[in-house]
Parts: sequence; C-alpha cells; structure tokens
Amino acid sequence: MDFKKTIRRVSTLIVASLTTLAATHVQADDKVYRLKLAETWGPNTPILGDASKNMAKLAKEMSNGRLIIRIDSANKHKAPLGVFDMVKSGQYDLGHSSSYYWKGKVPNTLYFSSMPFGMTTMEQYSWFYHGGGLELMQQVYSPHNLLSFPGGNSDIQMGGWFKKEINTIDDLKGLKMRIPGFAGEVLAQVGAKPTNIAPGELYTSLERGTIDALEWVGPAFDLRMGFQKIAPYYYTAWHEPGSETQFLVNKKVWQELPDDLKIILETSFRVAAFDMYTQALHENANSWSKMSSEYPDIKVRSFPPEVINALKQANGELLKQQAANDELAKEILDSQASYLNKMREWTTISLQAYLNEQTN
Amino acid sequence: MDFKKTIRRVSTLIVASLTTLAATHVQADDKVYRLKLAETWGPNTPILGDASKNMAKLAKEMSNGRLIIRIDSANKHKAPLGVFDMVKSGQYDLGHSSSYYWKGKVPNTLYFSSMPFGMTTMEQYSWFYHGGGLELMQQVYSPHNLLSFPGGNSDIQMGGWFKKEINTIDDLKGLKMRIPGFAGEVLAQVGAKPTNIAPGELYTSLERGTIDALEWVGPAFDLRMGFQKIAPYYYTAWHEPGSETQFLVNKKVWQELPDDLKIILETSFRVAAFDMYTQALHENANSWSKMSSEYPDIKVRSFPPEVINALKQANGELLKQQAANDELAKEILDSQASYLNKMREWTTISLQAYLNEQTN
Repeated sequence: MDFKKTIRRVSTLIVASLTTLAATHVQADDKVYRLKLAETWGPNTPILGDASKNMAKLAKEMSNGRLIIRIDSANKHKAPLGVFDMVKSGQYDLGHSSSYYWKGKVPNTLYFSSMPFGMTTMEQYSWFYHGGGLELMQQVYSPHNLLSFPGGNSDIQMGGWFKKEINTIDDLKGLKMRIPGFAGEVLAQVGAKPTNIAPGELYTSLERGTIDALEWVGPAFDLRMGFQKIAPYYYTAWHEPGSETQFLVNKKVWQELPDDLKIILETSFRVAAFDMYTQALHENANSWSKMSSEYPDIKVRSFPPEVINALKQANGELLKQQAANDELAKEILDSQASYLNKMREWTTISLQAYLNEQTN
Repeated sequence: MDFKKTIRRVSTLIVASLTTLAATHVQADDKVYRLKLAETWGPNTPILGDASKNMAKLAKEMSNGRLIIRIDSANKHKAPLGVFDMVKSGQYDLGHSSSYYWKGKVPNTLYFSSMPFGMTTMEQYSWFYHGGGLELMQQVYSPHNLLSFPGGNSDIQMGGWFKKEINTIDDLKGLKMRIPGFAGEVLAQVGAKPTNIAPGELYTSLERGTIDALEWVGPAFDLRMGFQKIAPYYYTAWHEPGSETQFLVNKKVWQELPDDLKIILETSFRVAAFDMYTQALHENANSWSKMSSEYPDIKVRSFPPEVINALKQANGELLKQQAANDELAKEILDSQASYLNKMREWTTISLQAYLNEQTN
C-alpha cells in the first residue's frame, strides 16, 4: 500500500534526520546543572569570599551556562562552621572553607591548611599537586562522602600583634594571647595562655589588657581592625606559613556530573585558588604599604632563635603524639616532613638566597 | 485526503521534534576547532614541553572535544626562534615560547620573561594579574597581530657554574662566560666577556677553558648536563629570578573562537602555567637533592655585596637608557619598579623573614 510505504519512508526520514542531528551533537549534554555552595565567610568578605565568586563565574562561562553555582554566605545559611556537615549530608552540593576547622570532627583534616614551621604556600602547592598531598587529602575526606580541593591561599599569616617585645622564652610564659586552634596548643606547651575571642571583641580586649597579644591574619585583613594603634610589635610568621582554604564537593553530586563538567569544575577550583593567592599577595603588599606609612611606629620583629627553637620543639612533640595515635596521621605527617625537607634545601639556595643577597 | 493529512501531520511532528531538539541544544556550537601550536622546544622537553601538552589536554577535555590543539615541536617546524613570526603570520594559530627571545624584533618584549634583580615568580604573577602587567604585555604584542599570556614559570635560574670563586668585582673582569641576552649585556658593563655557545658544545667549552663560567637553568635542567663535574662553584640567582614562558595566539584566530572556547583556552593557559611552575619547583628540589648527594663537593655561593651592587648599578643604567628611548618601555619599567618596590617590602617581612628565622 502506498500509504504504508509513504509512512515508512517518512519514518525513515525522521529517524535519519534525528540521527544526523544527534550525531552533530553527539557529545553535548545540554542539561543545566544547578549547584548550591555554602561558604564559611560572610557576604562580601574580600579575598576569601572572592574565591567562590571567581570560581562560579568561570564554571558558568566555560560550560556555556550548563553549570550554574549559587553561593550562600554565612548570613544566609547561619552555620559558618557547619559547611563540612552540610555538604556531607547533601544539604549543599559544594562548600568553601578551611580544612583545619574540622579537626574536632575529623582530626586528620588539620594537616591540609597550614602547619606551624611547615611548608610555604608554593612548597605546599607543589606537595599537593606533585608530592601526593592531594591524594592524602582525598583519603581523609572520602569516608565522609566528600571530595576536597585546594581552595585558595590567603598568604603567610603574620605572627600577630604584641604589646611587649618577646626576647626570651620567659616572655611567653603566662602571656595571654588570642590564637585559636593547633598553634594555640603549641604556644600552651611553652607556657603561654592561648584563648579564643570573637572578632568583634578583639580590639577592646587588647586595648584593656584582657589579652597581651593576638594573631589575626596579615596586613590585608589586619589594617581595618586597627590593632597597630594599641600594640606596637608586629611579629613575623611562624604558625601559618601559607594558609590554604578548600573547596568541598558532595561525592554523589560529583559522580552525577558529566565528565566535561567535572573537569570544568575542578579547573575552576584550581584557577580560583591560584587567583586568590595572587590577590592575597597583592592586597597584603598594598595594605602593608598603607599601614607602614600611616603608622611609622610599628615595630616588625621576628622571634629570637631561642623562642623559635622552643616553639619548634613543642610543635614537633605534639605532632609526634598525633602520629603515634593514628596511622593515616603518621603517613600524612611523614609525607609533609620529607617533602618539606627536600624542598626547603632548594628554597634555601634559590628563593631565600636571592632575597637575602639583595638585603645583605 | 487522508494521505495528505497524514503527511501534513507527520511533517508537523518532524518540525516539532526538530524544534524541540534544537531548543534543548540552543547554546551548543558543536563545531570542532582545530588549532596548531608551534613550540620553541624540542620534542619531549621536560617541564617546558609539558606546559603545552597539559594545556591542550585540558582544553580538549573541558570543551568536550570541540577544541583540538596539535602541537608541533621544534624538530617538526625547524624554527625554534621563529615562533613569533609563524603565529603572527597565521602559519600557526598558537605558540609556546619565551617573550625575551623576541627582543631583537620588538625590544619591549624583553620585559615579560624575567629581569635581573627583578620580581620573583609570585611577585611577577601578582604584577601580571593584579598590577597591570598582563595589559602592558598585550599592548606590546597587539600591533603584531598577537595576544600573549603567561605560559608557565621555570622557577628561579641559578647564577651559573664557575671554575673560580668570585670575591670581588675584579674577578669578573675578563671572565669568559656563556650568558646570552640582556643579562650578558649587564655582565659586559662590569667588564666580563659574555658569549653564547650552542648547548651541545657547552660542556667541552667549560672543560677546556674556552669559557670560565656558564649559566644554564637550574638543577632540573643542569643535572644531566654534568657541569658540576668540572666547575665546583654553583652561584645563586641574580639575572632571572623567575623565568616566565608565554603562550602566543594569533589575534584573528582568537576572534573567531566562540566565547566559551575563548575562556576555556585562556583558562587552560593559566592552569598549564601554574602547573609548570609547581612542576619546576618539584623537579628542581628533586634534582638538587640528587645532585648535592651525588656531588657533595659542589660549593654553593652567592656573589658578595660589592659584586651584587655593581651588577645592580649596571642593570639600572641599561634600563634607564631603554626607558629614555621608548615611551612604552618607560611605562613598563616604571610599572615593574613601583610594583616590585611595594611588593618586596611585604615579601621581606613575610616570606623572607619566615625562611630566615628558621635558619638563623
């Protein structure tokens, strides 16, 4: 029958057309993926808050609108230190935070931000990307249904603002200092009294002598806090030589992304991380320039060798305890120590020698 | 007529199907763009040659196969120092090389690799991305139908291998050293005899005393050259504190790319650049560890302050001449000097202080 034949022919045409069309679009999966990110920071936090904005913009542009990421700041989700749990549970798909915030929950997360007397930012990036660091980090996060990636470096943290000069280890004994986390534990080992105080009360606490010293971040964040007006000694770094933030991803969300969006997302993390580091360097340089010209009485000091050695020893003992208690902790700490050992030999004759030869 | 009606209905269905299909693919431009890249390096050159391979792989994966980049090494195109011209003319779409290779052609390209006593790698990345450096580089390349992007850093270059120790500026007078380019001009200003020698003849020239010293790159490239066997003094950096390579793009090719592929390509450049830097750090650390344990007699030296100051002065005078001759050169050099000035103040109290406090 003509009618049947025609239908058959038309059907064949339809199939052929659709096949051709499909073939030219064989790789395109044009579904739009909408992900939600929770960040630890408040809205419009400079540097830290720019990282996820830059990341989301890049992911959107590179995916031609197929990957859309909504960012909720702490004012929205009300749980700045709940990011780990919210991404783990799937309440959020992504997070931007700092790994050492989770050490109370998962002790081994401590090692992926920055360690006292540890690697500098670039030494640590080399460890992450070429020295096995990234794999170790995934090993720590994987049992919690999470992937974790370097999320941008806020540069070296200064040692903090002190009202009195530190000349001997005795000057640290009984010293009341706002310094949270593991660095506080190190200071406690040498007799200081570490404490944590809410950001809004820091200035008054230092002014009134409730505390004798505090660490915050570095010039880019410290300038607006005004500590330089009430504590003349600005100590150089020892406890966070290169603080890395992190992007967290819910593992199930990750697995459901098509391959090209996986690589677009991971690449957006990497670029945003690197951008955050150069931005932090840039802002620290600008803020230090402003701060040191507006407040020429700031006295920059480094702890004397005696104090450094005592802090190093205390740090080493604490880490030794952690390694003794947990096999994976030992593996991570050994990996960091041997990488740092080898890398620092090179840093010493390259970057450090270059910087020193011009100031000698 | 039933027949006609059916055909009409089927046609409507076809159109509807195709329209629906087209709508779900509205943003996809599935044309495959095939670009050719010429690199200055020979095939399988480590670190330098990995940059464009990593870049091409990333661009392909993120574009889901829509951006395919073929890489021709120097053995293929036979013109290692012709990359600028070949990309300018459109013979190649892309290039990977070093900006200072073009200074004979376009003098202002000199300033975008690494300058004697200039910015370290990270200081320079901050300048590129936040201090106006990238815009100045585009200004230099734009009249030549080219875009130029940072293409990866090979880390600090060592000052080179010397048969005799350099204690005073007199020790440099008459010294025959293989050191090409602008750094050679600086050395000539203080009385040395810079020369260029093909890589294959370097070892014999140094062994036989045709030259007294040479600079090559750093441990990762120097180790296999074997210079440590015949020249015991390994001097620290002064002339290339962070050598940046570059990706070149033919402007017309760039303009014809759809927006998402533009951003994918630019992002692939950025990630490959950053990867090359961490890889260079990693390889230098490994090679230095190997070299210093296998050849424990290597004597690492820094030029004494007298020599550094003489070289700095010579460098400053040469740059002053260049700034006097060309307005854009002046603008670039002023931008670098003021950025370095501000940034180094911060580097000194952050990174340098941190490194020094642990070796004091």
